[in-house]
Amino acid sequence: MRDVAIVGVGMRKWGEMWEQSLRDLFVDSALAAIDDAGVDHVDSMYIGCMSGGLFAGQEHLSSLLADYLGQAPIPATRVESACASGGMALRSGLLEVASGASDIVLVGGVEKMNDVSGDQATYALATASDQEWEAFNGVTFPGLYAMMAVAHMHQYGTTPEQLAAVAVKNHFNGSMNPLAQFPQKITVETVLNSVLVADPLHILDCSPITDGAAALILVPADQAAKFGNGKPAARIAGFGSATDSIGLHDRKNLAALDAVARAAQAAYKMAGKTPADIDLCEVHDCFTISEIMAIEALGFVEQGQGGKAAVSGETAIGGRIPVNASGGLKSKGHPVGATGVAQAVEVVEQLRGACGPRQVEGAKVGLTQNMGGSGGSAVVHILEVI
Amino acid sequence: MRDVAIVGVGMRKWGEMWEQSLRDLFVDSALAAIDDAGVDHVDSMYIGCMSGGLFAGQEHLSSLLADYLGQAPIPATRVESACASGGMALRSGLLEVASGASDIVLVGGVEKMNDVSGDQATYALATASDQEWEAFNGVTFPGLYAMMAVAHMHQYGTTPEQLAAVAVKNHFNGSMNPLAQFPQKITVETVLNSVLVADPLHILDCSPITDGAAALILVPADQAAKFGNGKPAARIAGFGSATDSIGLHDRKNLAALDAVARAAQAAYKMAGKTPADIDLCEVHDCFTISEIMAIEALGFVEQGQGGKAAVSGETAIGGRIPVNASGGLKSKGHPVGATGVAQAVEVVEQLRGACGPRQVEGAKVGLTQNMGGSGGSAVVHILEVI
Repeated sequence: MRDVAIVGVGMRKWGEMWEQSLRDLFVDSALAAIDDAGVDHVDSMYIGCMSGGLFAGQEHLSSLLADYLGQAPIPATRVESACASGGMALRSGLLEVASGASDIVLVGGVEKMNDVSGDQATYALATASDQEWEAFNGVTFPGLYAMMAVAHMHQYGTTPEQLAAVAVKNHFNGSMNPLAQFPQKITVETVLNSVLVADPLHILDCSPITDGAAALILVPADQAAKFGNGKPAARIAGFGSATDSIGLHDRKNLAALDAVARAAQAAYKMAGKTPADIDLCEVHDCFTISEIMAIEALGFVEQGQGGKAAVSGETAIGGRIPVNASGGLKSKGHPVGATGVAQAVEVVEQLRGACGPRQVEGAKVGLTQNMGGSGGSAVVHILEVI
Repeated sequence: MRDVAIVGVGMRKWGEMWEQSLRDLFVDSALAAIDDAGVDHVDSMYIGCMSGGLFAGQEHLSSLLADYLGQAPIPATRVESACASGGMALRSGLLEVASGASDIVLVGGVEKMNDVSGDQATYALATASDQEWEAFNGVTFPGLYAMMAVAHMHQYGTTPEQLAAVAVKNHFNGSMNPLAQFPQKITVETVLNSVLVADPLHILDCSPITDGAAALILVPADQAAKFGNGKPAARIAGFGSATDSIGLHDRKNLAALDAVARAAQAAYKMAGKTPADIDLCEVHDCFTISEIMAIEALGFVEQGQGGKAAVSGETAIGGRIPVNASGGLKSKGHPVGATGVAQAVEVVEQLRGACGPRQVEGAKVGLTQNMGGSGGSAVVHILEVI
């Protein structure tokens, strides 16, 4: 299996992008990645997108986006794994380079979520849960994560203030990210006084509805020095992916993310690294409880201790293990199919030392953790500067 | 890149399967493939599905189907490329084995299309076209292929009788396939007297709305002898994939399938074969005109001569190049995400000599051709018995 590296990244402002359609969003970020990498062609492309069908009435993104990017007739593949679509697209893209079938592969993610009503968006997102056992009975994603939060509070004593501290940290980080949808700084009181969506989750515990895209250029690691216009490349030192029961009711423990833990174990093993070797990580904070559970599953804190980490400052920029320096899904935004790709964009920029005020000093190794549904699918990548 | 072989296949009856949901359909075929291959575990799985969201209110098929197949926590990836989703899932699965990342990969395809109204199904299928330029303006897939048929008739003199002959041949073949949705034999007169859907396409020129699934087990070719319970394996000797403009209005020639031609050229080159080396093929006859254009793009007949092939018997079982011995999409059915996988199921069964009355005698090399939309994406695989 050939070693693979990321030599180009592209991302534009996220938010409510009324002037841009799905294809515009994708093409803008993809062109930025192509330009950043300095490649003169692409051999194949992958697109992470959760639900072009329900959000934009558009499937067949492979043909559409190869066409609008001016890259047809190259092979193009759309990958879906709910909110882990972007991370799984990265996994598929790297396997194509690793196999030797292609040398230069573009991996992009995109979601255009604001062109439907709030009800329609809630329905579309709920299709990431078990339709027959969960969505059909009316449960929404805030509802599912609220159940996980209640279980975590019950088992480990996690508090609403600890949840709020995650949001406060991520909005603080996002205030230094010019691409973030909600760069406003907030306080614990703001979070606790915001409207309850599903007890104990307030609206400021939830990631937003976002239009956005992100893209990467992958090449064999031994060719990486030829690309990137002199900027350092990021080798994909390890990766892992796993699934779990899609429905919460079948989980052994509502307060643990088993698929994340398994994906991380595989990635650490392949990379020959432990959590202590990781300088920063981007994790899937679709809700504040998700970040808490993710950093536990990734081994950065003991199971049940994630709630204290944001309060203590361990996960802040400058702390022991900076988490979501980009602002995370919470502040940067969460265009579901793009998120996993954007996490890698941030880690590559951090490894290049190009993040300005939110730079994690001396970052050499970073990790991304992306998941679908309530943790039914998960994917982890470990990137190392070369 | 490691050589890859198919060592197990699984498929159940297709049709209006009111007693089975999407997950049931998939699991039945996947278990049949696992049993056929005699594997005791699966390392990773791929699912081709065009629109779980619009047809079944269910995205996140990776987690759902790994879970319901009892295979979680393995990695699972859903691939979408409209009606080429199954073929592209096969391409992704073989790249994972080729890369060395996994040894035993399950590739399945599934679509559950009958749980929505006809209007909803027409809308869902139209999302494979360009939403902003085609679907939004009311064009449907019969309409798009009707335009291609008219262009083909205009340029090459293709006739409604030639179109009908494709349907007659495929229903005759399908009458010998116990899994086919519509195994009824028909005549040219039946086709020409059936209701016009979009002139010149009658309803019997169109493939049906189908619930169904199909599955394959892939392993490294040098390990193939260990699996399949003594049945011959099929090496994937070549594969290719390409894209074209998604919208018909941007094509150079409405009467040619450029993406199919490019995908085929790549597959022939990799396999070191020419069209003359192929003993049988399964092509994407979503409409009768599609088969005519596909066999031209694949090089089995000259451009413009496809219409005569079904009439002359060249493409019949026993003819020069048997096309759609399974009955094709036309008679066997077209659960869009499953079709590309089912094509490989048929070719493997033919290479094994296991097709009973529809067996192509002495078949050693077979080809599958699957496409999305009006040909905006295409994928070709060449299988050879080992």
